[in-house]
Amino acid sequence: MEKKAFQDYYLDEFAHCYGCGRLNQDGLQIKSYWDGEESVCHYTPQPYYSGGVPGFAYGGIIASLIDCHGAATASAAKLREEGFALGEKPLPRFVAASLKVDYLKPTPLGTSLELRGRVMEIKGRKVTVSVTLSAEGVICAKGEEILVQIKDK
Amino acid sequence: MEKKAFQDYYLDEFAHCYGCGRLNQDGLQIKSYWDGEESVCHYTPQPYYSGGVPGFAYGGIIASLIDCHGAATASAAKLREEGFALGEKPLPRFVAASLKVDYLKPTPLGTSLELRGRVMEIKGRKVTVSVTLSAEGVICAKGEEILVQIKDK
Repeated sequence: MEKKAFQDYYLDEFAHCYGCGRLNQDGLQIKSYWDGEESVCHYTPQPYYSGGVPGFAYGGIIASLIDCHGAATASAAKLREEGFALGEKPLPRFVAASLKVDYLKPTPLGTSLELRGRVMEIKGRKVTVSVTLSAEGVICAKGEEILVQIKDK
Repeated sequence: MEKKAFQDYYLDEFAHCYGCGRLNQDGLQIKSYWDGEESVCHYTPQPYYSGGVPGFAYGGIIASLIDCHGAATASAAKLREEGFALGEKPLPRFVAASLKVDYLKPTPLGTSLELRGRVMEIKGRKVTVSVTLSAEGVICAKGEEILVQIKDK
């Protein structure tokens, strides 16, 4: 893993996201890295991000983590496809066009969650990513996200 | 609209959700109501729920609002299907099995967002709901959610 995360290479103007923006002091500030062909992110949500029943994550935080990890994965994959290494130029910024989450099992809180992303397709400015979310080695949710690159000014 | 919201009729044990739990002091505490055949929720997210660019909502908060409003809509619809009015018995609690969100336009912050839910199907313990999220009269996102009723103890 690199020391700096994908999200550390976003331009400042795009670094305010609640889920992944390093400049959002109120946010989650998740961090994503390459791990071979997959991208990985570890995150332990606060206890108040519970579902109806305490001790388990609410659907929204699961969707949020998948959304932001997916967007970072798309950005890093696009950069790599263009032949650049992380840090050689700012990361292109992607936004979600669609997000589908399948909630397979209750996701426990109080433990580190592991998100793993895999690039399914890069087609011009459109990238499709699949993401799994696991707790203690068990996949609790799966996501598929279609992202579109924001055009340069 | 009723004075009490759907979420006010969840049993205490199911009322801790970050998105919609009335007992979660750190959460969003969204409130959903019937408006004819549709369910409606109005919510103004805090500015820090921004996407990469300040002033627009991040994908995760949009998914969260659709998720929780959809779950409440499923609960209220199931109660109604069973022949009960709100308040006659506790609301059954549903959890998301899957959630699909299409992000159609950037969703502005600093304004009240309107969520409108519509029940597509009730099939035993499974309910399918579609939800639109609008800002200033413009639909910015659409969701479809499949929810499953938690079994009574």
